[in-house]
Amino acid sequence: MMHTQLTLRLLLEQPAELFPYKEIISRTENATFRYTYADFYRRVVRLANVLQDLGVKQGDRVAVLAWNTYRHLELYFAIPCMGATLHMVNFRLFRDQLSYVIRHAGDVLVFVDDSMLPMLEPIAEKLNDVRGFVVMTDGEPVTQTALSPIYDYEQLLAQAPDQFAFPDLSEESAAGICYTSATTGNPKGVVYSHRGLYLHSLNMCIADTLGISERDTVMPVVPMFHANGWGFPYSATWMGATQVMPGPHPSPKDLAQLINDEHVTVAAAVPTVWLDMERVIEQEGGYDLHSLRALVVGGSAAPRGLIQRFQEKYGVPIVHAYGMTETTPLATVSRLKSIHDPLSNEEKYDIRAKQGLLASGLKMRVVRDDGSEVAHNGKEMGELLLQGPWIADSYYNDERTKETFIDGWLHTGDVVTVDEEGYIQLMDRTKDLVKSGGEWISTVELENALMAHPAVAEAAVIAIPHEKWRERPLACVVLKPEYVGKVTKEEMIDFLAPHFAKWWLPDDVLFVDAIPRTSTGKFFKKQLREAYQKGELNPIS
Amino acid sequence: MMHTQLTLRLLLEQPAELFPYKEIISRTENATFRYTYADFYRRVVRLANVLQDLGVKQGDRVAVLAWNTYRHLELYFAIPCMGATLHMVNFRLFRDQLSYVIRHAGDVLVFVDDSMLPMLEPIAEKLNDVRGFVVMTDGEPVTQTALSPIYDYEQLLAQAPDQFAFPDLSEESAAGICYTSATTGNPKGVVYSHRGLYLHSLNMCIADTLGISERDTVMPVVPMFHANGWGFPYSATWMGATQVMPGPHPSPKDLAQLINDEHVTVAAAVPTVWLDMERVIEQEGGYDLHSLRALVVGGSAAPRGLIQRFQEKYGVPIVHAYGMTETTPLATVSRLKSIHDPLSNEEKYDIRAKQGLLASGLKMRVVRDDGSEVAHNGKEMGELLLQGPWIADSYYNDERTKETFIDGWLHTGDVVTVDEEGYIQLMDRTKDLVKSGGEWISTVELENALMAHPAVAEAAVIAIPHEKWRERPLACVVLKPEYVGKVTKEEMIDFLAPHFAKWWLPDDVLFVDAIPRTSTGKFFKKQLREAYQKGELNPIS
Repeated sequence: MMHTQLTLRLLLEQPAELFPYKEIISRTENATFRYTYADFYRRVVRLANVLQDLGVKQGDRVAVLAWNTYRHLELYFAIPCMGATLHMVNFRLFRDQLSYVIRHAGDVLVFVDDSMLPMLEPIAEKLNDVRGFVVMTDGEPVTQTALSPIYDYEQLLAQAPDQFAFPDLSEESAAGICYTSATTGNPKGVVYSHRGLYLHSLNMCIADTLGISERDTVMPVVPMFHANGWGFPYSATWMGATQVMPGPHPSPKDLAQLINDEHVTVAAAVPTVWLDMERVIEQEGGYDLHSLRALVVGGSAAPRGLIQRFQEKYGVPIVHAYGMTETTPLATVSRLKSIHDPLSNEEKYDIRAKQGLLASGLKMRVVRDDGSEVAHNGKEMGELLLQGPWIADSYYNDERTKETFIDGWLHTGDVVTVDEEGYIQLMDRTKDLVKSGGEWISTVELENALMAHPAVAEAAVIAIPHEKWRERPLACVVLKPEYVGKVTKEEMIDFLAPHFAKWWLPDDVLFVDAIPRTSTGKFFKKQLREAYQKGELNPIS
Repeated sequence: MMHTQLTLRLLLEQPAELFPYKEIISRTENATFRYTYADFYRRVVRLANVLQDLGVKQGDRVAVLAWNTYRHLELYFAIPCMGATLHMVNFRLFRDQLSYVIRHAGDVLVFVDDSMLPMLEPIAEKLNDVRGFVVMTDGEPVTQTALSPIYDYEQLLAQAPDQFAFPDLSEESAAGICYTSATTGNPKGVVYSHRGLYLHSLNMCIADTLGISERDTVMPVVPMFHANGWGFPYSATWMGATQVMPGPHPSPKDLAQLINDEHVTVAAAVPTVWLDMERVIEQEGGYDLHSLRALVVGGSAAPRGLIQRFQEKYGVPIVHAYGMTETTPLATVSRLKSIHDPLSNEEKYDIRAKQGLLASGLKMRVVRDDGSEVAHNGKEMGELLLQGPWIADSYYNDERTKETFIDGWLHTGDVVTVDEEGYIQLMDRTKDLVKSGGEWISTVELENALMAHPAVAEAAVIAIPHEKWRERPLACVVLKPEYVGKVTKEEMIDFLAPHFAKWWLPDDVLFVDAIPRTSTGKFFKKQLREAYQKGELNPIS
């Protein structure tokens, strides 16, 4: 067979040839910008020339700080196809982390939306490798900024030639880099190869995962700095799907409007985005969501109720998926098997609320602390280990590689069960688990149960040291204001008791005024544990 | 990213894990054999042990002469997954060719259906490398044969262990070999790598090609010795689809019955198979074909009328595909684009009758004799050149490699047009084209037009030498018996005239009593041209 290299160039060139008239629609602050795949391709070619003219060489890293826009999509292809590496920068990072990731990646050029210039200006002097800033704006070219040298995206493109000889790249070469936050220390970089992205894209298009097709209208709401926008920009472009880019800080109303106006068939985001949109739809009415054939949810677990409500109220199937920065990210998709057709709706929601089946092409092991594999019975918990052609094998120039990539397997740090049919369900993070007497207790399960109590605003369960059992669960509960002082610890435990084995029940319940959160809004359990250790966890009376 | 190798082992192990209860159904002479993926997997493991015990080593070639049965499917996986190469032997080859391909491949072991023993017995002495024959039978073990040593498939499997350590293979290693007939000389061998088959299988599962899914019931009627059974056994197994193997010499009635009984959703064969089945359905009635979502046609062009009749009479979509042994084989699939939705049915049939769009992942060029590319206007003809990860780069140990694989491109020998939307249409074989005054005339187009005349039984158009134009078309026409002597040459030309440019019209029409055919039943135009040159083409008066 021919040694054809699996590179992103094919994903760019095929649709431009077969579907030049298909549209890419991009929301701006005040309007909707539309152009065709032919226009898109022409601008990617020009952009490749711009990159070359600005001195970008094969193997260089180029940073992008941008909303999901058509220009961002152009960068998604021009940078890797001309041989450089796209560094998708999380513009929500703290200032020090932002400076760290740009320096650590060694970015030589930065593309930035005008609205994000204020994030870069304070750290500009630290960015020694950066030789220029290209500003993307829908308005007049920016001239007032502390950054230098500065270029205007549209001016550069207007002057660039319409031909570019894309190089023949090895499929192993780096196409993208994305940093993921770490529990301690700076973010860690994951490098995506052309081969990995190519195979990941194909897998998103097979009928039994997401079946992305030319007939789809795909809207990635998930930021494109999050693990390749979950792969949608690449797979949708390859198939020639219509694409909708939600643009700068889209509101829930903007999203509902885009789905309604552009007849979006596939959209993807974290659960809270759809929860917020649901509120708008309920309050305002008048939005037609029937074009949606898959509302993809990832990033954190989709509540079963959300899946049920969207199905029953709007006829919209929520498709639960799971992955992480290290997995490009698609690792599992929760779809029903044909054997499930006779089940009741309730039973189907139970399955769809799980994280789903492993993607074709990946391998997994689910192991206990001693490395032994758990039974697939939906009960035994173990850490999920993954292997496959779009799974990272290291962190970029990072000592922490050895903590996560062991004996050829990615240790996800996620504790899961696997049921008889192979459906994976997330139970906890390994670091948050309570290891009690050699058995594992899922803090997430306990929290979900606690949060179902009418008095509870939020609840976090952490492990506290125990002489005999090594660790035992402690529940930290924030009560809704009107219930403060009106419920007891015992009531909380009694509320849990019917649903769990006795040894799972927390040894104690602390009523606290807040649960600390990380920069990405998740419970910061490490801080909670440390506060407890130091005696700083103050219960409210 | 991890350097995970793309091998067939994954296609075997994933469905056994996720869909152990799904069924594989195999027609025998008198009954229907059914078992599960779990059974299938267990037997593949045993078969791998059998191969090893019979001395098969990594890199060895193992021949299979068999109908499409569950045992053949077992061999499709056990041989490549244990590191050897599956030689899928066309049991319809002439005796000398059969002996040639087994010797040329260097097969060390032969698996053979009992009904095919008489093909091997006369050539047994010539098969020097073959160290044994394993006979597959639904009846009692065969003992009476001139072949030696001989083994019984089921007896070997019954004794084999249930564990096998499948080796970690390079994705570049050979998984299969298939010989394709040549215009002159012996058949030529095409070697399929694990990587090529893996990527080919994935492509068959993407929504915009065939979308093979767990929910499908797939029946490959195309023999499994033809280019991997067109890839269906691999892709269907990977997804965990229900599979139906039509078994020994299936009749058109058998096929209609299997579709009816097993609710087949995807079936694949050359057009004549479906033409024959159509006759049975019409005559006998009572067959329900509504389960079919795709009746895949390849091997030769599907008549537009066949596509239309199946759609309108039975609601069955015929999906036209094109490929060849050298392309694994899926190269194009004719599916409509979303832009075609508003077209009339007639316009849609026109598109679906073309060979279709290039598969995602392949590259093509369509070139004239001087290497220049033709315009994509549905008119200009050129030879189709292909490149991609499941396109062969050579013939196995064969001098003729250099005639077909040139500068990194497979020269298909097929002359095509490409329309504005990228749909490829087969026009002729390069060797059969008429090259008249620097322009190309498609003999196939002229033949199709002639065969639409009520008096014509069959027609072949060939190039004959011409002093000024270099070549000119000559039509050789077989009249239906009742028309012999009743139509003139002039009537034939007049019949063609409204449909073609004047210079396309044949210079002469010869009424002959038969058109010579090749062993595979195609017009043998080379022989026809030679007969004409020698003055041996006798017109009937």
